[in-house]
Parts: sequence; C-alpha cells; structure tokens
Amino acid sequence: MAENARTGVAIVGLGGAVATTAVAGVEMMKLGAAGTEGLPLADAEGLVPYTSLVFAGWDVEGDDLAKAAQVHRVLDDRQIEAAGPALTGIAPWPAVADPEYCRNARGTNLVAVAGLRDRVAHIAADLRRFREEQGLDDLVVVNLASTERWPDLTLPALATADGFEKALDVDDAAITPGMLYAYAAITEGSPYVNFTPSAAADVPALLELAEQRGVPVAGKDGKTGQTMMKTVLAPAFRSRALTVDGWYSTNILGNRDGEILDDPDSLSSKVATKGSVLDDILGYEVGDHVVRIDYYRPRGDEKEAWDNIDLVGFLGQRMQIKVDFMARDSVLAAPLVLELVRLVVEAQRRGEGGAQEQLGYFFKAPTTRDGSRPEHALYRQEQVLREWIAAGAA
Amino acid sequence: MAENARTGVAIVGLGGAVATTAVAGVEMMKLGAAGTEGLPLADAEGLVPYTSLVFAGWDVEGDDLAKAAQVHRVLDDRQIEAAGPALTGIAPWPAVADPEYCRNARGTNLVAVAGLRDRVAHIAADLRRFREEQGLDDLVVVNLASTERWPDLTLPALATADGFEKALDVDDAAITPGMLYAYAAITEGSPYVNFTPSAAADVPALLELAEQRGVPVAGKDGKTGQTMMKTVLAPAFRSRALTVDGWYSTNILGNRDGEILDDPDSLSSKVATKGSVLDDILGYEVGDHVVRIDYYRPRGDEKEAWDNIDLVGFLGQRMQIKVDFMARDSVLAAPLVLELVRLVVEAQRRGEGGAQEQLGYFFKAPTTRDGSRPEHALYRQEQVLREWIAAGAA
Amino acid sequence: MAENARTGVAIVGLGGAVATTAVAGVEMMKLGAAGTEGLPLADAEGLVPYTSLVFAGWDVEGDDLAKAAQVHRVLDDRQIEAAGPALTGIAPWPAVADPEYCRNARGTNLVAVAGLRDRVAHIAADLRRFREEQGLDDLVVVNLASTERWPDLTLPALATADGFEKALDVDDAAITPGMLYAYAAITEGSPYVNFTPSAAADVPALLELAEQRGVPVAGKDGKTGQTMMKTVLAPAFRSRALTVDGWYSTNILGNRDGEILDDPDSLSSKVATKGSVLDDILGYEVGDHVVRIDYYRPRGDEKEAWDNIDLVGFLGQRMQIKVDFMARDSVLAAPLVLELVRLVVEAQRRGEGGAQEQLGYFFKAPTTRDGSRPEHALYRQEQVLREWIAAGAA
Amino acid sequence: MAENARTGVAIVGLGGAVATTAVAGVEMMKLGAAGTEGLPLADAEGLVPYTSLVFAGWDVEGDDLAKAAQVHRVLDDRQIEAAGPALTGIAPWPAVADPEYCRNARGTNLVAVAGLRDRVAHIAADLRRFREEQGLDDLVVVNLASTERWPDLTLPALATADGFEKALDVDDAAITPGMLYAYAAITEGSPYVNFTPSAAADVPALLELAEQRGVPVAGKDGKTGQTMMKTVLAPAFRSRALTVDGWYSTNILGNRDGEILDDPDSLSSKVATKGSVLDDILGYEVGDHVVRIDYYRPRGDEKEAWDNIDLVGFLGQRMQIKVDFMARDSVLAAPLVLELVRLVVEAQRRGEGGAQEQLGYFFKAPTTRDGSRPEHALYRQEQVLREWIAAGAA
Repeated sequence: MAENARTGVAIVGLGGAVATTAVAGVEMMKLGAAGTEGLPLADAEGLVPYTSLVFAGWDVEGDDLAKAAQVHRVLDDRQIEAAGPALTGIAPWPAVADPEYCRNARGTNLVAVAGLRDRVAHIAADLRRFREEQGLDDLVVVNLASTERWPDLTLPALATADGFEKALDVDDAAITPGMLYAYAAITEGSPYVNFTPSAAADVPALLELAEQRGVPVAGKDGKTGQTMMKTVLAPAFRSRALTVDGWYSTNILGNRDGEILDDPDSLSSKVATKGSVLDDILGYEVGDHVVRIDYYRPRGDEKEAWDNIDLVGFLGQRMQIKVDFMARDSVLAAPLVLELVRLVVEAQRRGEGGAQEQLGYFFKAPTTRDGSRPEHALYRQEQVLREWIAAGAA
Repeated sequence: MAENARTGVAIVGLGGAVATTAVAGVEMMKLGAAGTEGLPLADAEGLVPYTSLVFAGWDVEGDDLAKAAQVHRVLDDRQIEAAGPALTGIAPWPAVADPEYCRNARGTNLVAVAGLRDRVAHIAADLRRFREEQGLDDLVVVNLASTERWPDLTLPALATADGFEKALDVDDAAITPGMLYAYAAITEGSPYVNFTPSAAADVPALLELAEQRGVPVAGKDGKTGQTMMKTVLAPAFRSRALTVDGWYSTNILGNRDGEILDDPDSLSSKVATKGSVLDDILGYEVGDHVVRIDYYRPRGDEKEAWDNIDLVGFLGQRMQIKVDFMARDSVLAAPLVLELVRLVVEAQRRGEGGAQEQLGYFFKAPTTRDGSRPEHALYRQEQVLREWIAAGAA
Repeated sequence: MAENARTGVAIVGLGGAVATTAVAGVEMMKLGAAGTEGLPLADAEGLVPYTSLVFAGWDVEGDDLAKAAQVHRVLDDRQIEAAGPALTGIAPWPAVADPEYCRNARGTNLVAVAGLRDRVAHIAADLRRFREEQGLDDLVVVNLASTERWPDLTLPALATADGFEKALDVDDAAITPGMLYAYAAITEGSPYVNFTPSAAADVPALLELAEQRGVPVAGKDGKTGQTMMKTVLAPAFRSRALTVDGWYSTNILGNRDGEILDDPDSLSSKVATKGSVLDDILGYEVGDHVVRIDYYRPRGDEKEAWDNIDLVGFLGQRMQIKVDFMARDSVLAAPLVLELVRLVVEAQRRGEGGAQEQLGYFFKAPTTRDGSRPEHALYRQEQVLREWIAAGAA
Repeated sequence: MAENARTGVAIVGLGGAVATTAVAGVEMMKLGAAGTEGLPLADAEGLVPYTSLVFAGWDVEGDDLAKAAQVHRVLDDRQIEAAGPALTGIAPWPAVADPEYCRNARGTNLVAVAGLRDRVAHIAADLRRFREEQGLDDLVVVNLASTERWPDLTLPALATADGFEKALDVDDAAITPGMLYAYAAITEGSPYVNFTPSAAADVPALLELAEQRGVPVAGKDGKTGQTMMKTVLAPAFRSRALTVDGWYSTNILGNRDGEILDDPDSLSSKVATKGSVLDDILGYEVGDHVVRIDYYRPRGDEKEAWDNIDLVGFLGQRMQIKVDFMARDSVLAAPLVLELVRLVVEAQRRGEGGAQEQLGYFFKAPTTRDGSRPEHALYRQEQVLREWIAAGAA
C-alpha cells in the first residue's frame, strides 16, 4: 500500500534553494535521472517511496520552480534540463508573510488577507484543495521559509493551546506567520516539519495542540553542515577527554538565507539554535564559543564554514584543530527534508502524534516533549532513529 | 586491593617522547602536580590507580628520563622541574636492537648478546629483576619503540607458536627485536601492549602463544590524531550518505618518529596500518585514499596533520572538507598508553588471555582473535569498551 | 655621534603587550641576550643604534614592565628572567585617559587633572623631566594606547591648527586624549609616531601644526599581520590580472586589544583603517570585502587571522585562496615600532618635519601630506623607504 | 602592421589542458565570446593582438580540440559550445615521442620515424607547411608536453652546439624528443617557449645555437600557482626580517600532468625547478623546504596546493602561515602562454635572439644567458618586463 501512496508535501518557502533542490531531486528520480545518493534512509524499509511525493506550497515570490532553479544555480545545466518540464508546472501559491517578523524577505506573491483567522482559513483551504485535486493519501507541511525573529515564549498567546486560540481571535502580534502555517497544518491533521530556526510549531501552545490532535510535529532547524560536524566532533573530544577551551565558528554564505541573516533579529534566532549544542554534549560550558554568520556573495549558495577549535589535553597541553567545510547548504538540506517527510508520514500511520523526539538526528535544536535538553550527539541520535524505524518494520 | 597494588610498566623505547610524557605525567600525579585531564577513563571504576604505576624499560639511548624530557621538549619548564627528581632516577636498561629491522634508529645503549634465545633470556631476566626489586603485583610490557619494517607473515617462523620456537633455536632472521620482547613478556606471564605499527606480538605465532598461556595482548598502533579523526568523521559521512570520493592526508612531524619514518621500509608499516580504516567503516573502497608522512623539523614533536576530503552528496553534487590538526603526538598518545596498561592488568585479573578485542578503541589496526576485520568507528569502539569495563565493576 | 646618542622613547600605553615586547627586546640587546632577528632595518646605515634607546611612558595601569611581561606572556620564562631587572625599573607614569573615548579601557593609574590645557601641560612636563633626567639627545613619543573611537574630522576643532588651539581653551569634547599626547609632543619638538588606528595626530589640525613646527609625524596603524599580507598578495593578483571578487577576513585575538575592540565604536576605527587598502591597490572596488575582528580568549596574545579570497581569472573561471596566519601581534609589531623611532629621529636630524610619507611601509593607513590616497603595495613602500634611507647615508 | 599580422603558434602537447584552454580562449575572443580577463598584458602596447594567433601543433593523442575540451572539463558547457566549431577544426599532428623519456605518457598519434635527423626533418616540415598554408607572418613553437626525465647536462651531446649536431648524427640517447622540437624551431627561425619543467631548449647546446641563429628562446616551467605565491610571499618575509625556518608544500592534482608526475623520474624534474626559488629570494638556505606533488583524481584539473610556512621573528618567537590555493592549473597557465607567444614575437621583431631574460616573470626556473642565478621575486620580474615592453613602445 505504501508503494502506491500519493504523499503531498506543501512547503512554506517553496521557491527557496532547499525546496527547489528537494523537488528537482524527486522529479529526477521519477524520471530515472537521479539515484538515491545522499539520502540517509535510502535503505530503510517501510517508508513511503521518494517517488510517491507530490509537491506544492507557498512563496512570497511567484516564479515557477524551473525559474527558481535557474536563480539558485544549485543544479547544473544538465539537471535543470532533465527536471525542467516537471518544475515548470509547479508555481508557488501566494504566501502569508509579514515584514514585521522577517525584515529582509521581500516579494509580491502575497495573500491579501489581514486577520489571523482569515489567514489560517486561507492556508487550510490551500491544503484541502491540494489534497483533493491530487487525491493524496497523506499530506505533510514543511517549513523552509526565511528565519523569523524570535518570539517571547512567556506570552500567554504562546503558552497554551487555549491561549493561542484566544490570541488568534484578537489578532495578537505575538503570533507570527510561521505559527499560522503550523496551526493550520495541525488543525487539518497534516504532520508538520519545521526545518528552520524560527519558533513556528516549537512553542508550548502548538506542541500542546499537536499532542491533543495526535498530529506528528518535528523540528527544529535542520542540522546540515557546521553544527552537524560539531555534533560529530564534540562527542569524540569528550570521549578522548580533550577539553574544549574555545570554539570559533564562522560561516560565509551568499544565498537568500545569508541575506536574511544580515538582519540581526533573524540572525539571533539562528545563532541561538546553534548555541547550546556544544555545552550539552560536552557536559560543561565552553567559555569561548563564538558563532559568526556573514553574508558574502561571491559563491552564492555555496557555503563555507571555518572552525577553529582549541583543545586542552594531558598535562594541560594545548592543541588546535581547524575545519573548513565547503558545501552547498541546499544539497545537504534537501535529502534531510525528504527523509523527514517520509518519517512523519510513518509516525502518523503508527498513530504517534505530538513532538517526534526520535527525529533529533535531523535538527540543530530537537524538540522534546517535556522541554528537557535533547540528545545532540549524531551517532546516538542515529541509533535512536534506526531503532524507531526497525520497530515499525518488525 | 587494587588501591594498594604496585603495577610495573616495562617500556620498550623508554626514552622516547611518548614514554617520557607518560612517565612524567604519572610522577606529577604522585606529587599532586598534575590532574587527570586528558585521561579518557579517569572516571572508570575498578582499574588500578594511575599512581600505582612504577616505570622502567629499555632504550637504545641511555639518558635518564630527565634528560630525555629536555630533548623532547614535550613538557614546559615548570613541569620538567616538578617531575625532574623522579625522572632523574629512571634510566633505560640496555636494549636489544638491530639496524637491520629499523634503519634510522641509532644508539649505543645496547645489549651485547647475539643469539635470539640469549636475547630473550636477557629480556626475561630484566623483567624478573624489576618484578622482585619493586615488589610488583602486576607487570605489563609496552612497546613504544621505533617502527620496524614489516615482516612476511607467511613464513613458518611467524605462522605458529611451534614454528616460532623452532625459529628461535636457529636464529631465524624472520624474528625481529620487537617480537623478542613480546615473546619474553608472554612467556613471563606479563600482559603486552603494542602501541606501535610494528608487527611485534601481532603475528599468528605469538597470538597463539598468548592464547595458550592466557596472557592478555593488545595492539596495534595507537590511534591518536589523524586516524582517530578519520574514525570519527567517516561514520558520520556514512550516516549522512555522503560518499567519500577521495581523502588526502598529509602529516608533518619533526621528532624521532618522523626521522624513523623517513626510511621507506618503516614508513610502509605505518601507512599500512592507516590504510584500511576508511574502507572498513564506509563499506566501499575509497578510490583515492592517499596518506603522506613527511619528516619536517621546524616544530619538533608538534605534529601537524592536514586532510582534504572530497565528498559527493545528493544529486551528485560535490563538497570538500579540510581538517588541520595541530597537536603533540606524545600528549595524545601518553594517556592512551596509561589506560591500556590499566586495562590489560584488569583483563589479566579477570583471567582473560589472548588478543583483547575490546581495546580496539585505542588502536589504528585493532587485533582480532580470528583475523576478521575489526570495528573502527570510534563511538562503537567506545561502547564496547565501556560495556566491558562495566561488566567487571558489576 | 649617532653611536653615542641617547634617544628617549616615551610610549603612550607603555604597559601593553607591544610596548613591553619592544622594551624587553632592547633591554635584552643591551645585555647581549638578543640579536636583531625580526628587525627589518638591522642592516641600514646611519640610524641610531637600537641600544641607544631609553624607554619611559604612560599607562592607565601602573604595574612595572616586569609585571606587565608576566601578564602578556609574550616572552618565554628565560627571556623574562634575562630582561627582568631592567624591566622592573620601568614603571608607567599616570596617564591622561577618558572612558568616553575608549570604553573598554580601564585602569587606575590616572592623572587627576581635568582641563585640556592642564592635561597638555602635565604631559609636556613629563617629557621635559624625562629629557633632563636621562640627558637625552632625542625624544620620540609613540602612541601604542588602546584604540579610541573615531572623531568627526569636519569639526572646526580638528580642521586647522588655530581651531585646535581655540578648542583646547574651551575644553572642546572633539579633542581626544590621544590628540593631547600628539599635541604635547609636537609643541615640545618631539617626533611623534602613531602606531594605533586612533586619529591622534592624523587630523588636519595637528598635521598642519607639525608642518609649522617642523616636527616629524608618522602614522597610522601599524601594518603587521593580515593587512601586511593583503598588501603583498593584492599587488600580485593585480599583476597576474586575477580579479578579486571577494575577500573575507576574520581575526580572533584574546589580548587587551581584542577586549577593547569588543566595543563597536573602537572596532569601527580599526576596520576603517583596514578597509580601503584593497581597493587602492587593485584599482577597483571589491564588492565583498568583509573584515571581522572577534575577541576570543583561548590563545591570549596569539592572534589568528583567517582569510578567504575569491578570484576570477581567464575565461571567467573562479579560484580560491585561503590564508591562515598565526602569530603574536606583539612580536610582529614591536620591531616595527623600534624602526619607526629610529627613522623619525633621522628625519628630525635631516630637518624634515610634518607627515613622513616615506614611512608608509609600516602603516595600514599611511598619512599623506595632501590627503591623497597613499601607496599600499608593500614592495613599492619598501623601495621608497630604502631610497630615503640611502639618500641620508650618501 | 602588428594589427594585421597572422602569428602561428605550434604547440607540442596541443591536446593537453593548458593548450586547449589557450586555444579555446583565443577562439572565443575572435567570436567576441570572451574578454581579456586574466591576461596580464591586456593593456600593453605594441604586441600582436591575441586574435591574430593561429594554432596548430602535435600530440600523442589525435583527438581534435573540441573532444580534448570535453575530456579536460576546463571550460563550462556554454564555453565549449561557443568555441566548439573552431576547436573541431584543430586536430593535432602526429607527435615525436618516446616512453623512454616520459614513462606515463601514452598515445597512438605518433610519427613513425626512428632516426633523430629524420624526426627533426619531420618536425621542420610540419612547421613549414603550417607557415605556408596559413600565410603566417610569425611562427612560435611552444612546449606544453608532459614532463620528460632530467638529462645529464655534462654529456658532450648537450654541452655545445657542435656536440649536439654530432649527437644527432649518431642518434645519441642523450637527446630527448623535447630537444628535437626545440632544435627544429631554432633552425627554422621560430622563437621557442618552454613552459614545461623539461630541459628541452634549456641545455647549453641549444642556448648556444639560439644565440648563434638570433632566435628568441624563453623558459622554463610556467610559474602559475604555488611557486608564484612563493615568489610573492618570500620577498615580503625577507623585507620584514621574518626568517623562514621551514616551508612545506603539498600539491594534489588529478589531470594528465598529475599522472605523469606519478613517475618519479618526471617528478624529480618538476621538483628540481621548484627547489631553489626560496633560497635565492631569501638569501639563505631554508633547512626544511619540502615539496610534494601527488596524483589525486577526485577534482581532475582543479589543483590544490597547501603550504605551511614556519617563520621566526623578533626575539626568536615563532609564527605559522598556512596557504591553501585551489585553482585550475590550466586557467592560470593559458594566459601566460598567450603572453609569452606575443612577447617572443616582439623580441624577434626587435632582433633580440637567444635566452630572453626579461621574461623571468613567467617562469619557475628562468633561463639566464650566463647560467647565473635568476631573479625570482615576482614584483622585480614584473618591473623588468614592463620596462622592456615600454622600451619597445617608445
């Protein structure tokens, strides 16, 4: 049955580099023009096939995905040509957006609806129409939109499911566009994946709602390059009893993400989710953990992350490690997005709603049900994930 | 009881940088001048305390360890001063050596005995004298000598315990000095640790003998810097389905080790033990895995390892990672040596003889009982080790 | 005659790492405990010898230089011991300082004088006393103090010598402590060197004054590590017609300088003097020239500068260069300070007052007499300098 | 007149990456599809225009240049398409080659002529035919072939022009294929450029001959990436009195060049020309100057050069610089080849024969008339070159 399923994927930020890469990859797989390289769970059993995925979504820019692919230049000419016809047919729906929450994002493909309840209704209608028109068996909403500024989580509007409902009624400014999409997904019974550093579904109110409705929610902030490396290296330093005296991380990137993060408010959300990873793994506070993200255009979507690590070992002797990671963020992120879609569908089929803790493997700041510190070490996260998958296959 | 034990450590290559650092560290701990930073099992229960260790050993250079510490410059002035009096009292015994097997090693502190049986007897006598004079409860032999050239393991002399005995009788050139120390240790009932890339105890003949006598044997080639990093990074690349298209590793080092490895025969032993790690972890053969080790004097014992890794991910897109690791090899190696000593003592107390597979965590080329491919991923090795330790404490 | 000269050097910021290193170096030379390694003009003829230099100066912290050397840890134990007795005898005079202009600088060794005229008189008195007590032939003032925030150069107070005099009379806030030292030096007839990024003497008013009085003035902002490399590499890229598409520079440093630059106002002065170097050399504006300076404590005075350079060459093909420079800023800076002292003495002896354009070799932002763009290419600066020196020797 | 000239360029190794890139670039300029970016002398006056160049040459592989461009992947798809028609029309003539002198070079497009005199006649006939068929005003021969092993320069065959003639008569094995091309060019009156590390024209016999015949000869070994950087950085270190204690250079490359250099005999020619550059610039012998070149396929023609430099400065304090240079060798080399062609044509027009010392700017091992040490510092070489060009324009 999973073999014949049609699984809808409605992406917030459909025109971005990550979304475009993910969609193009699946369309190429459907055509036999791409394999499963780079997909961590290509060999896992019981998940819906990649080729069962059907894409749609929202974006503040209305260009179809073929044009978006030209702009982002993530694919080479041959790949754009192969995926082109399929991509041309996918154009983003108008988006609910607000410069108040994400300053450097601009675009004209916007929903002309002002009230929060009306906006939710608009998003929900998009989802229902997508489900019906495509005859979908499952429908997942994925947040790949630009980073919003971080909200005050102690506000009543965000603290409980009830409070959130009341806040919707009065158009409370505490509610960001990202939260509206998450709310609409949950109330429509669609699993929701937050791959961005924005709060979105990761506020107490919405986690409570997802739990009540039995809808799987996964987040947040995809763990792709530098932070992924941190969660690989730090456990090894701890294992070898090498004390991390300082860790300096700089990132240069020139895509739309980088431009967004040039706004300090968006940046602080991003840096926050990167922050506590080290301390949690090491078991002590690293005095000098500096994370820089700079907008630097020359290489566009090709990101570079340079890290300097200062270690102290036996007899107090010092050592240094430098790591320079050059990769396209989209190429690292897109396969994780595809796996997450397959996994939340699986969770829904198993009847497991609320925060999906077993998916921490994919995130910089994994959501936990009780707000406790999550596991960050990549290999331990992988073990948890593999066991969860195996439990379903059994 | 373990608390009051006196554990002898007889080191082949006592005057080298690693041995000097290990001894100085323990002497400083005895004086309260050093803590347990950099020691991976400082918190493990049931092992003999670091301060129970008593050191002696052999070296082709006869300088006491205080002088050796001055030469290697691994310790700073304050540390040399603190450990000085204790180090002055430790001078290497004359060594069994042969330029035939390790060309660039030179020295005059040599045993003037030619026949293999006589050499074994000489080494055994050193061990017995050490045991009696110091009133030792345990006695471990550790190989930290310069790398010997790699032997032909198919020779009858090295294939069986019987063959080895016969070869000793006829002074067979297949038997290297490193094997003589291992043979003496095993026949004297002393656990043996091979921290070098030399074959030493890691030939079928001696593994069989260790099994017969119930003597723990651990090896080989300490996993300190670059290879340790490989066994941390490669599992992550596999986990994320990033294909390793090439891995170029260069090492520059200016200590005695580097000088020894300037001889191609010694180098090939070293490179061989570094070689298969990647393929074993990844599950496929990396087409371009290049390992260079160059003698470069400017920084003495401070080693630098530069790696370039070429990865292929989603949609065949390429990425690169560079890792530059600057560390003193001795500082990384010495704490591992101390842990190994404590662990083989524990194994002997548990009555577990032969190749100690649970100690793979410490080695580039872990010895397996049946010659099968060992586990190389650091985190899995650590789990095995921790479980073994816990089983004893229970 | 030059051989027997006594040349006083009064340093603003005497207790800092650069000053301490410079003084210690000369004291060690006097004792025969150091040679002239690292001194660019050790072979130049006609300049006063290094050992003729006699040091004093001001600092907001009153510790003698032996204590300062302990804090900065620029010298090793052996060197501190050798230079110790001489350094103990040198304690900073109380300084004129004001947190208004340099926020993160703190200290208690302060002159309790409020009015600008009184402060100038105090500084001038220090200089006269130094000159008399030491029987000096020459006296140079060097600014090595922490970076002040950048002033508004269009203010009348800073635009003309007359305006400056009037501003002194009314305690105009446009005048910073750094300018007071420069003013005092010039009016006392002492050549003045500004090795910092602060404006100090490099305002029209004081340059005019120096010209009028015939006093040599040199500045500003010592060209030591990263910028020095830029002025070496950029001319080569231009020569080979490789277009610089972007240049990303990050600096991590953990000494007092780094702490000062953690204040955005001080940082902007620093980044400004680093800024235009590239464009001036290349002849076009580099679109993405990013310079980051971050306070990162683990390595104290040992600074690290990591650069990524994006180049475009033949047929529009792209290439990248990364440069990682690890050095003690003080070790690079101190010899340049010593050479500058010798050179402004020489200029004064030749009767050449005002801005010393031939000294651009030493500075990130060389002062020019007419405010025109300076030469930045290191090799051309060196040619100009060598010719000027030779002209004097002839 | 120069404007309407037709300048033939006969390239030994026409099918290689550098030659293909150079030819494609000029053909694209003719079509208006490429500009002069990356060409150092685009603004120089009096030289023949790039678009006057007409290409032909020899290669052991017979594929036309459109196919060669596909193999080398130096150009992107759009560029191959633009230059394609012109490149299809250029197919290499059969080459004179011999595995004896260059082991890893293989190919089937070979001249079936055995005797040296006959081979020379064959090459000369190719040149004459090219000149006539194309109505050339000038004809330059450029060596871009794979590196040959280094000859014994003391052999009589290579010591004098007379000796060489006699050696040709007796098919002396001292004469390599590379020398035959050089001899043919000189005797045909064609200026000759040796961009490879092979000896070729850079033997006393052929330099004497070129002098006698008044034919310009330039060489040897194009200075593109790592060595170019050395000749930029080393003068700066000398200027700042930073002593180079060690310089470790490693190169990884995966194109045909890399494969050739996997043969130790070819490698030693290459490393030799890289060797003395540092010592000559610095004025002292660098104790640890290590140069490694390794064949590493993952990135094909994209080369990476990693350098570690150990410096000693003021008070004996140590510092380190790492440089990582990632570039396509062909993209750096091709424009230099084009400039050299234009410059030797200019030299011939000025009547200046023999070794062209003013062209040292382009070479790792510049030929000097009297065998004296050449100037290596890039900026001084550039000054010499610019003055020579200006002298002609005046």
